Amino acid sequence: MNYGSIRYILGWILRLEGVFMLPPVLVGLIYRENIWKDYLLCAVISCSVGAFLSFRKPKKMTFYAREGFITVALSWMVMSLVGALPFYISGEIPCYIDALFEIVSGFTTTGASILMDVEALSHANLFWRSFSHWIGGMGVLVFMLAILPLAGGGQNLHLMKAESPGPSVSKLVPKLRQTAGYLYGIYFAMTLLEFVLLLCGHMPVFDAVCVSFGTAGTGGFGTKADSMGGYGPYLQNVVTVFMLLFGVNFSVYFLILVKKWKDAFQITEVRCYFGVYAIITILITLNLTASAGGFLENLHHAAFQAASVMTTTGFSTVDFNLWPECSKNLMIVLMFIGACAGSTGGGIKVSRVVIYYKTIKKELDYLIHPRSVKAVQMDGKRIEHTVVRAANVFLIAYIGIYVVSLLLISLDNFDFITSFTAIAATINNIGPGLELVGPMGNFAVFSDCSKLVLIFDMLAGRLEVFPMLVFLMPSTWRK
Amino acid sequence: MNYGSIRYILGWILRLEGVFMLPPVLVGLIYRENIWKDYLLCAVISCSVGAFLSFRKPKKMTFYAREGFITVALSWMVMSLVGALPFYISGEIPCYIDALFEIVSGFTTTGASILMDVEALSHANLFWRSFSHWIGGMGVLVFMLAILPLAGGGQNLHLMKAESPGPSVSKLVPKLRQTAGYLYGIYFAMTLLEFVLLLCGHMPVFDAVCVSFGTAGTGGFGTKADSMGGYGPYLQNVVTVFMLLFGVNFSVYFLILVKKWKDAFQITEVRCYFGVYAIITILITLNLTASAGGFLENLHHAAFQAASVMTTTGFSTVDFNLWPECSKNLMIVLMFIGACAGSTGGGIKVSRVVIYYKTIKKELDYLIHPRSVKAVQMDGKRIEHTVVRAANVFLIAYIGIYVVSLLLISLDNFDFITSFTAIAATINNIGPGLELVGPMGNFAVFSDCSKLVLIFDMLAGRLEVFPMLVFLMPSTWRK
Repeated sequence: MNYGSIRYILGWILRLEGVFMLPPVLVGLIYRENIWKDYLLCAVISCSVGAFLSFRKPKKMTFYAREGFITVALSWMVMSLVGALPFYISGEIPCYIDALFEIVSGFTTTGASILMDVEALSHANLFWRSFSHWIGGMGVLVFMLAILPLAGGGQNLHLMKAESPGPSVSKLVPKLRQTAGYLYGIYFAMTLLEFVLLLCGHMPVFDAVCVSFGTAGTGGFGTKADSMGGYGPYLQNVVTVFMLLFGVNFSVYFLILVKKWKDAFQITEVRCYFGVYAIITILITLNLTASAGGFLENLHHAAFQAASVMTTTGFSTVDFNLWPECSKNLMIVLMFIGACAGSTGGGIKVSRVVIYYKTIKKELDYLIHPRSVKAVQMDGKRIEHTVVRAANVFLIAYIGIYVVSLLLISLDNFDFITSFTAIAATINNIGPGLELVGPMGNFAVFSDCSKLVLIFDMLAGRLEVFPMLVFLMPSTWRK
Repeated sequence: MNYGSIRYILGWILRLEGVFMLPPVLVGLIYRENIWKDYLLCAVISCSVGAFLSFRKPKKMTFYAREGFITVALSWMVMSLVGALPFYISGEIPCYIDALFEIVSGFTTTGASILMDVEALSHANLFWRSFSHWIGGMGVLVFMLAILPLAGGGQNLHLMKAESPGPSVSKLVPKLRQTAGYLYGIYFAMTLLEFVLLLCGHMPVFDAVCVSFGTAGTGGFGTKADSMGGYGPYLQNVVTVFMLLFGVNFSVYFLILVKKWKDAFQITEVRCYFGVYAIITILITLNLTASAGGFLENLHHAAFQAASVMTTTGFSTVDFNLWPECSKNLMIVLMFIGACAGSTGGGIKVSRVVIYYKTIKKELDYLIHPRSVKAVQMDGKRIEHTVVRAANVFLIAYIGIYVVSLLLISLDNFDFITSFTAIAATINNIGPGLELVGPMGNFAVFSDCSKLVLIFDMLAGRLEVFPMLVFLMPSTWRK
């Protein structure tokens, strides 16, 4: 294990985090909240420790998959431990585990909260919550790769693979640093566009900033107790559209930028993503209309909620915990499917679901016509055996973590739906579940032990299981 | 597709079923119930239709995997359609879909019932319910293979593979017919032993017969409204032990018979089976004792219920729906793990879970030390790639069926726990779930549509997904 380079990268992560804490200082100053001092203190601490760790560049930056996983897992943990400090020091979240839960929920773009009353928070803290979504959405290490010349290409690929969501990582351009740059460029531009469109709908500036961050990272922290329920239909529709756009594989936007229109609109994953979204939205609308309300109003809310849950954002305009069972179950299905690979969304990812579907179809074809079996294909290319295998192992590990987590948090003795959807909402980085953790509930009810389990699930979900498992394996640390 | 041989085998299945209906005729005569005439009528119909279908042996009995799957799927469906007739004709289950549900639940050894009052049934019908467990437990086609010289070895293997539970089928002896014979011999002897031990505990003869059939097939239909709750601890303990024994891979008993003791006790699956059972029983006992009751009493019930659910039998001594959440969730986990491959139990099977565990471990090893990766091994032998792949595809297809079923039955608008565990209880062939379908509830609450979905799930679970999926694939029926 190359501890030197892990230390070095962690140092840079902390330096970066220190810089990221400066905008909240500014927000504090603008709104004349004393909390700006706390943020400045934390920024200084973070930068100093970071500078100390990354003072000397190690001679060898050699880096294998193992170091990639460990670095990413450690980076996210350290970043969260430090990121929770302002909440704690300011006294607005008096328990450190709660503060940690809140910031992990932010960085992993989950949006699950332990706060009883969101509106009691200072502007600086509200901003930091939403900003953490934006930072975590695209990935901190990917950001670092985009701006810092750390090491060679091979090394960086290990880091990017470990942090980026989806069954396989594709480089848009040969240079990885350039790829990361493009991704962040698109990310920034789209966030800005949403911000402007929200302002056009007369949303207050501060709200528009936070909502844009929350949408871009598919996070879901809001600044209001009723999430998006208090805003008008125009604003809700803007958010619906942007949630969907941020759940799309970002390579689509790259292809559009380089004017490969045809390629952009023929990606199987993206077609399935919109197909599943459309079908489920219509099913929910029909199911809702069968019990109450007009078709158009139900369509409006179904479109918003389905987009919110499928992209794992977690905003809400209505309390879907009160919907009929079939609609609720459709929402649970969406929770697991999640968004596209290479987007800021969580969940199992549409591309994996497509791979699973194709795998079953291939196996059945094999059983029926053993001699005429073709390899599994997607977008005209053969899916590598290692990718299929990794997708299968992902599913198994995912279920394993799910089951263990469920057993551990059920010691709190809440009803099955609360426990089951609390795990679903955290491991898929969504935010709200059903019952006690529904859109109108929060995660404060759980014991500290359960909160730690859920924190692990959020990290495992965001990093797609393997970095956290590699981190926990004793054999990783053996010589 | 060789329709001739499928027709021929279906004919023999119906002839056999006619013969199987003779014992209920006898029971009816003994208890002077008029229903014996209905059973005789059904037996005659079944035999006549069967004789008609299998009158002429087709010239070619050539048989591939596809025909194997179709034959098995069709056999189980036809058998159920005919087996439901006595319930319906006798008027004791006036709705045919209910009667079908009940007999599919019997043959698939599920034990889920739509009856509000079991004790109102005639002895003949009670006997037929329990007898159907015994017939379905070891497999009808396997039974037929054991007694009839139908075709060559290769053909029969396709049938046996399609009907037998577990990731791979092992022949105990080179001749398949002999293997089937041995299996049924062991099955018969063990059922008899349980019957005798139950009689020793002063259980009434009729109850002892029915309970023995229910245990042997890991079915779970009882003759009493409170299942096993009314019997004394001795009888309950006998049933606990025999449930566990019937959940063991039957090759263990074969190895013991041929005195290969060492091999018998070193099978990984069986060790894991008892290991998981012991650990979960103790965890449930501790969890129960923390809230109420003495340790020994809780151990007694936990041991019974864990055995009942893990072997997918479904008998109950207490209403585990009232247990604390953690214990209930442990029961749900057991529902999914299920019994050993090559036993009469259902579920995902311990051997598959072992394969899944080893697959994750191998993938993590591969990530940590890419150059020192070994193939997945079990019992000193390398697990074939096709077996691992089939286990993975099984899991995906299983989840797919689960999700679709859940969405369909949730149209009945019952709470999530009822719907979720109703599917778990049927697809894993257990019987009781939680809430409305808990040990004290029944499946009568569901609509006819939902009952059809659950009937499909029971068959899919018993035949391990693929035969039913192959049957439904349009490309199976294309030329």
